[in-house]
Amino acid sequence: MTDPRIAGAGVTQFGKHPERTGRDLFAEAGLEALDQSGVDPDDVEALYYGNFMGELAEHQGHQGPLMAEAIGVDAPATRLEAACASAGAAVREAVKTLRNGEADVVVVGGAERMTNIGTAVATDALAIAADDLFEVRAGMTFPGAYALMARAYFEEYGGSHEDLAHVAVKNHEHALVNEHAQIQKEISVEDALEAPTIAAPLGLYDSCPITDGAAAAVLTTDEYAEEHGLDAPVAISGTGQGGDNLALQDRPHLARTPAADKAAHEAYADAGIEADDVDVAEVHDCFTIAEVLAIESLGLFESGEGIHAATEGTTTRHGEMPVNLSGGLKAKGHPVGATGVAQLATIAWVLDGSHPRADAVPDGTVGVAHNAGGTVASTTVHVLEVKE
Amino acid sequence: MTDPRIAGAGVTQFGKHPERTGRDLFAEAGLEALDQSGVDPDDVEALYYGNFMGELAEHQGHQGPLMAEAIGVDAPATRLEAACASAGAAVREAVKTLRNGEADVVVVGGAERMTNIGTAVATDALAIAADDLFEVRAGMTFPGAYALMARAYFEEYGGSHEDLAHVAVKNHEHALVNEHAQIQKEISVEDALEAPTIAAPLGLYDSCPITDGAAAAVLTTDEYAEEHGLDAPVAISGTGQGGDNLALQDRPHLARTPAADKAAHEAYADAGIEADDVDVAEVHDCFTIAEVLAIESLGLFESGEGIHAATEGTTTRHGEMPVNLSGGLKAKGHPVGATGVAQLATIAWVLDGSHPRADAVPDGTVGVAHNAGGTVASTTVHVLEVKE
Repeated sequence: MTDPRIAGAGVTQFGKHPERTGRDLFAEAGLEALDQSGVDPDDVEALYYGNFMGELAEHQGHQGPLMAEAIGVDAPATRLEAACASAGAAVREAVKTLRNGEADVVVVGGAERMTNIGTAVATDALAIAADDLFEVRAGMTFPGAYALMARAYFEEYGGSHEDLAHVAVKNHEHALVNEHAQIQKEISVEDALEAPTIAAPLGLYDSCPITDGAAAAVLTTDEYAEEHGLDAPVAISGTGQGGDNLALQDRPHLARTPAADKAAHEAYADAGIEADDVDVAEVHDCFTIAEVLAIESLGLFESGEGIHAATEGTTTRHGEMPVNLSGGLKAKGHPVGATGVAQLATIAWVLDGSHPRADAVPDGTVGVAHNAGGTVASTTVHVLEVKE
Repeated sequence: MTDPRIAGAGVTQFGKHPERTGRDLFAEAGLEALDQSGVDPDDVEALYYGNFMGELAEHQGHQGPLMAEAIGVDAPATRLEAACASAGAAVREAVKTLRNGEADVVVVGGAERMTNIGTAVATDALAIAADDLFEVRAGMTFPGAYALMARAYFEEYGGSHEDLAHVAVKNHEHALVNEHAQIQKEISVEDALEAPTIAAPLGLYDSCPITDGAAAAVLTTDEYAEEHGLDAPVAISGTGQGGDNLALQDRPHLARTPAADKAAHEAYADAGIEADDVDVAEVHDCFTIAEVLAIESLGLFESGEGIHAATEGTTTRHGEMPVNLSGGLKAKGHPVGATGVAQLATIAWVLDGSHPRADAVPDGTVGVAHNAGGTVASTTVHVLEVKE
């Protein structure tokens, strides 16, 4: 069975693009990925595409064929939606298609346009990732939901808002050299602690911004990469997905994310690695507390220890286990349907040495990407490895 | 490689269910499928779920985990969206997952709630399957788009509205004994011709209704079915998907559906059959002209011959090639995200002899299901075979 190779990847500038459609954004990322890969667009046999709120933000469903046409690809195209893990879900199906022998070359990507509808409407659109009947109508928003998870975590394991502030400070610092990042601004722990409260205990700097953007990657079988002499040293060697009840009220525990535990377990088993083998991770830090939960689910830290990781410097670019070298969703931005593939691109670039923060793990050969939907009711984890 | 078995299927009453949520509808279909299959819900390892307009009709995205919980399944769940072919796309990923050896049991299904938002809003929501920028904003609706395709067909191949009326009469007659059908009403050719015009040449009886409903099926590997003594004689032996430009303006030809040609070609090759082997078909007759285009793309009729099939009786339940024994989308109804799986259920029930119209093909062993999205910009085709 093939280990799918990442032959090329493209990411747009993340940020506010009120004048550009989702199609326009995806075309840029997709064409960049194709160009970087050296693959002939005629060889692409399928497109798997992540998008979350196109129906609400652009009055546009059925975006699969639209995006295939936008990048000049004549192949069946399917949209995956798993809220903020939509692109991660798309990667899974792309990997499956290559492993099945159904295709030698696929494009995977995603896009989201959000700033055009304004923050209030976008916040409401994001809320459809929660249970409308039992959460949204009761007034739940995502900042509120993650605030509950942060409170539950503090109560069970300890830790403080100051520890979360260190996560934000770290990710802002990481993003300073990421040209695609929405926010390139150094902040201090004091800045984060003094910022307006969004949903206590979370403040402005505990939350990712509203972002427009797109990401794409060209994946091939290892046989195709070899035959065509592609420069594609990084393989996706493991994939996993976990699910959980959508509504927080239906869960036994708010300070853990079992869907991510399952996804990590499956992906590691699939790749034949263990958590100790991981050199670098991109995780879904839509809120600072989410990064803490993610690194625990990935097995990089024990339960209750993740809260200290940024404070102690372990997850900074100078630490033993660098997390979110891209700046994470926090500073890089979070164009929902694109995020899972943007994470993949970051890990690939870190492992092949081309990322501006690659010096954090000069000998790194194993990376993981953790993409979560809703309050981690859907999670995908992918293991990437350098395979010469 | 396994030939995935259909171990059980469930379909709700199609029609108007303004008082029921999509979750409630899917729970009914999913639990019925599980019950019929005899599979332990704890054995289900994944849910693939089709839905098209939940964001607009129910303010609910991220429906995968919601629906898994609704049927008591603790497994990762992913939503697929390819407009009206969403459920067909879900079936493809389910089949791939079983063939890959990643799971032994999966549930595939879909649901749509549409009547709660009213016909005008539902028509606008359906329009997001077309290109918003280049079609919808120019005033395009789906009845209008299919009317253009009918006109192009008549101009190229001949045929008339009366031929299309025979498609409607046939499908209404087929639905008379389908207890799940939204419309159980016999009509005459005159009724169809005298009905109000929707978009010339198409009239009221050329169009499927707006429908609420859900469908689900339990799929297993053949090894699992054998080990557990399941009564699952029907296998999914072939799957195919084709894509086309979303906007009609970007296509060279309006009287053909090349995405369906490709999907059929791929599915037949995958199953190792030819069009001549097909005994029965369920096709995507959102409009009567769509059935004509579908049976030509499936290779059951030559280009230009499909228009005469219903008129001559070939596709009736007494004919050589019965099409849409369920009543089709036309009379059974079209809860968008459920349709592809409802087609699968019909074919399985016809082939195992339990469908009330199964006597149309008493010796039938091969059936196909054709599910199309938009103006056939996405198409999936599945081949079902009796395998003892």
